[in-house]
Amino acid sequence: MTGTPYDQIRTLLQRYARAVDERDIDALSGLFHPGAEITGSRGTQSREEWLADMAAPRSFPRSMHVIGEPLVTMDGDGDRAAVDTYAVVYQLGDQGAGQGDLTLGMRYVDQVVVFEGRWVIAHRQATMVWMR
Amino acid sequence: MTGTPYDQIRTLLQRYARAVDERDIDALSGLFHPGAEITGSRGTQSREEWLADMAAPRSFPRSMHVIGEPLVTMDGDGDRAAVDTYAVVYQLGDQGAGQGDLTLGMRYVDQVVVFEGRWVIAHRQATMVWMR
Amino acid sequence: MTGTPYDQIRTLLQRYARAVDERDIDALSGLFHPGAEITGSRGTQSREEWLADMAAPRSFPRSMHVIGEPLVTMDGDGDRAAVDTYAVVYQLGDQGAGQGDLTLGMRYVDQVVVFEGRWVIAHRQATMVWMR
Repeated sequence: MTGTPYDQIRTLLQRYARAVDERDIDALSGLFHPGAEITGSRGTQSREEWLADMAAPRSFPRSMHVIGEPLVTMDGDGDRAAVDTYAVVYQLGDQGAGQGDLTLGMRYVDQVVVFEGRWVIAHRQATMVWMR
Repeated sequence: MTGTPYDQIRTLLQRYARAVDERDIDALSGLFHPGAEITGSRGTQSREEWLADMAAPRSFPRSMHVIGEPLVTMDGDGDRAAVDTYAVVYQLGDQGAGQGDLTLGMRYVDQVVVFEGRWVIAHRQATMVWMR
Repeated sequence: MTGTPYDQIRTLLQRYARAVDERDIDALSGLFHPGAEITGSRGTQSREEWLADMAAPRSFPRSMHVIGEPLVTMDGDGDRAAVDTYAVVYQLGDQGAGQGDLTLGMRYVDQVVVFEGRWVIAHRQATMVWMR
């Protein structure tokens, strides 16, 4: 890991954006702690349950997760942090098939930890703030 | 304060986003210097005048301030900086009442200073670049 | 240069946003390596070819480049980096003349290097992910 812990946590979030947009399940898996819990529109899921949903056929063929600057609160010894991040997610419809787009305002409230030498998400609460 | 001054200034801006979206007047107050001047659509206001406007009933029930990466120019001794930040502000209407949304492209040009051990906004010029 | 290399690279991208929105050709020129190649909708161009296009009359009178957090991969000795950045570009039409807006989801994949004491873009691949 290079950069400050703040830089490393921003990198984690950007790696998430690329992996989720590319539906790269292996890359996504490596961004979460094995015991991670993800709470969102499907309730609370384990990492494996959540990854299985992500591997399912997509409702929208493409997406772009534009993830804002995180609000990072480092914990005492520097290997844990609370991270609160706004994001705008563009779910891009198949225009040729007449499918429209969906734009979501999301808020990710994460607990991130250093695990095996890198920052990973140990807990995520994903909340949809708006959808248009 | 942890992180570099750049990290701390980014944190200040994100705290602003959360406080303004939650209309947390106490939190907002703590993000500005007591002698701050805020220039925007209502002319130039003192911190207290601006906070009084923020405490008034909202035109839109909810908002999401997605604040971009700041362009930070540190000043000589590291306790002052000029900060130029783009933001997209989603003003979310009450859909049940047929109220539409408003999206604003904003530019915040700030002078920030270290005051009582933390970064605060000493002067803000808020300009609406576009509204749709 | 102040801040970490990560901060300096973010500053480079924000200077790009301001310079391109203001069509400040001199400022834009200084953000690229003299031998830079820019690949985008017009094919692969030299810095001078690309700047000449930027200096031509604008299709839209104003723009706002809201550039997301970059995914930075530093290279060995710290004077080169690969940078992968999402951006949302608002091309603002002349409403008085009935011209609509265009919003673009862009991805910039850059090679940046330290040249004459500052970070510059040595290669850019600009891809439009979506347009609405």
